[in-house]
Amino acid sequence: MAYEFKLHRTVEFSDTDMAGIMHFANFFRYMEFAEHAFFRSLGLKLHTNTETGVRGWARGNAECTFRQPLRYEDVVEIHVLVKEKRSKSLSYLIVFRKQEPNTIGGLIEVARGSLTVICVSKAPGESVFRAATMPPEVDAVIEAAPPELLT
Amino acid sequence: MAYEFKLHRTVEFSDTDMAGIMHFANFFRYMEFAEHAFFRSLGLKLHTNTETGVRGWARGNAECTFRQPLRYEDVVEIHVLVKEKRSKSLSYLIVFRKQEPNTIGGLIEVARGSLTVICVSKAPGESVFRAATMPPEVDAVIEAAPPELLT
Amino acid sequence: MAYEFKLHRTVEFSDTDMAGIMHFANFFRYMEFAEHAFFRSLGLKLHTNTETGVRGWARGNAECTFRQPLRYEDVVEIHVLVKEKRSKSLSYLIVFRKQEPNTIGGLIEVARGSLTVICVSKAPGESVFRAATMPPEVDAVIEAAPPELLT
Amino acid sequence: MAYEFKLHRTVEFSDTDMAGIMHFANFFRYMEFAEHAFFRSLGLKLHTNTETGVRGWARGNAECTFRQPLRYEDVVEIHVLVKEKRSKSLSYLIVFRKQEPNTIGGLIEVARGSLTVICVSKAPGESVFRAATMPPEVDAVIEAAPPELLT
Repeated sequence: MAYEFKLHRTVEFSDTDMAGIMHFANFFRYMEFAEHAFFRSLGLKLHTNTETGVRGWARGNAECTFRQPLRYEDVVEIHVLVKEKRSKSLSYLIVFRKQEPNTIGGLIEVARGSLTVICVSKAPGESVFRAATMPPEVDAVIEAAPPELLT
Repeated sequence: MAYEFKLHRTVEFSDTDMAGIMHFANFFRYMEFAEHAFFRSLGLKLHTNTETGVRGWARGNAECTFRQPLRYEDVVEIHVLVKEKRSKSLSYLIVFRKQEPNTIGGLIEVARGSLTVICVSKAPGESVFRAATMPPEVDAVIEAAPPELLT
Repeated sequence: MAYEFKLHRTVEFSDTDMAGIMHFANFFRYMEFAEHAFFRSLGLKLHTNTETGVRGWARGNAECTFRQPLRYEDVVEIHVLVKEKRSKSLSYLIVFRKQEPNTIGGLIEVARGSLTVICVSKAPGESVFRAATMPPEVDAVIEAAPPELLT
Repeated sequence: MAYEFKLHRTVEFSDTDMAGIMHFANFFRYMEFAEHAFFRSLGLKLHTNTETGVRGWARGNAECTFRQPLRYEDVVEIHVLVKEKRSKSLSYLIVFRKQEPNTIGGLIEVARGSLTVICVSKAPGESVFRAATMPPEVDAVIEAAPPELLT
């Protein structure tokens, strides 16, 4: 059973804005990068399209508090942890850290947020997605993180 | 004194993703569109760069709950209201609504979130922004909305 | 018959990068804004999904030469003209202009490019799009611009 | 002397649009990812801000022809080659390739374009960038690719 994943990304020039820092909306794109990489690391698919229908994970809520800016070429660690697991949804805690300049090996937290996603599906021919119990292959390998990791 | 603004935008093709709906990170870009349009409507600048230094509004926190998808060419109303005003920060409630299909004139809420921004400045030659009291021209014209509008 | 359209947009904060100007990839998004607004102005749909299949306009080529930067809150005129019309494709000339500061009423050209799009369709159940003759309702209302407008 | 670099990226969910494929404007962002990675691979900086001024590389022209779509989770090879080197500018050929499904080891070309960038600088206190001779550390390590690689 898995409950966390760390993804590292280099901040791209096109992720910055005229304030010289990563635009805040991109933190939410980065959250999703880590969520998807977590699924890939477990051999899971977030989005499937088969003869029995389409299944995905709708975003229910997203939140982020920004403490430090990220700048061009910063290498950011995006740490995703499963905060809560329900039959039809998952909530992630997501912590952004970067190398502290002028320190040896230290990482500082730059932002912290959460993402709640709801399993949804629609049968062939249907036009609207409905909340659905998560598929057994996801239920079998993802669990909530120990509470002491979520503070 | 002003405490709200409504901006209307048409969802662009490039705002959608392969799920056929507006990508959730774009809701945060749209929040900012409305915040900036609110300032513009009052003759205010969010970002100034003068001989006494640079001043802007750093994003402290952003949050959104998604109830309904937005689709290509949907006309969305982005309603921004001042939820809280402090000496160095503003918190906005932001409500997204769209025309309900098959109804006459009705708008339905598609998402609701908040954005907290902190006034920051740096003097010429400084490299780091610091929280700062908001400028008098902003303080003079922006106030918190009546509580009954914030529910 | 129509061969041109002008769209006006205000450059958003999130369209800029750390160089303080609109990121060059966004000029291509803006091209598409104008292309779609041109179709909308004629009551046409670029993307249709019906029981006979899905039809759209695939991008075949895009090109842009950048002469002047666009900055936050610049109001840009995106002028799209039909450069060439074939049975299965359309090529647009797209010119970006902005108000020249310190002049009365003058617009200066900031960028100029082209976009070639190919009508594509797939029948229900097919997975791959194929080039297709453009639909009669498009053929009936769009024509190439007079050559003297294309220099 | 170096004249090429290959960067590999996985197409993100947020890079796609409602047509189910990577949005065409993102190919231009990907071009820039490869250009910047090429510079990083040589220990060079594209953007510098020192006491003698700011120096960067303005985009002069960008062009791309699209042959095949890229889809979510496709691993794309972005191959950047120096097509032309002048005292103040560099032109790159950029070729996008992906793994052909159902083949062993084969890569297919999905898109091909070019990017011309102009070295620009401004002295402290100046507000406008001017074209400038490229810095010696760039001139010393980057050269044009052999013509037979550019076809």
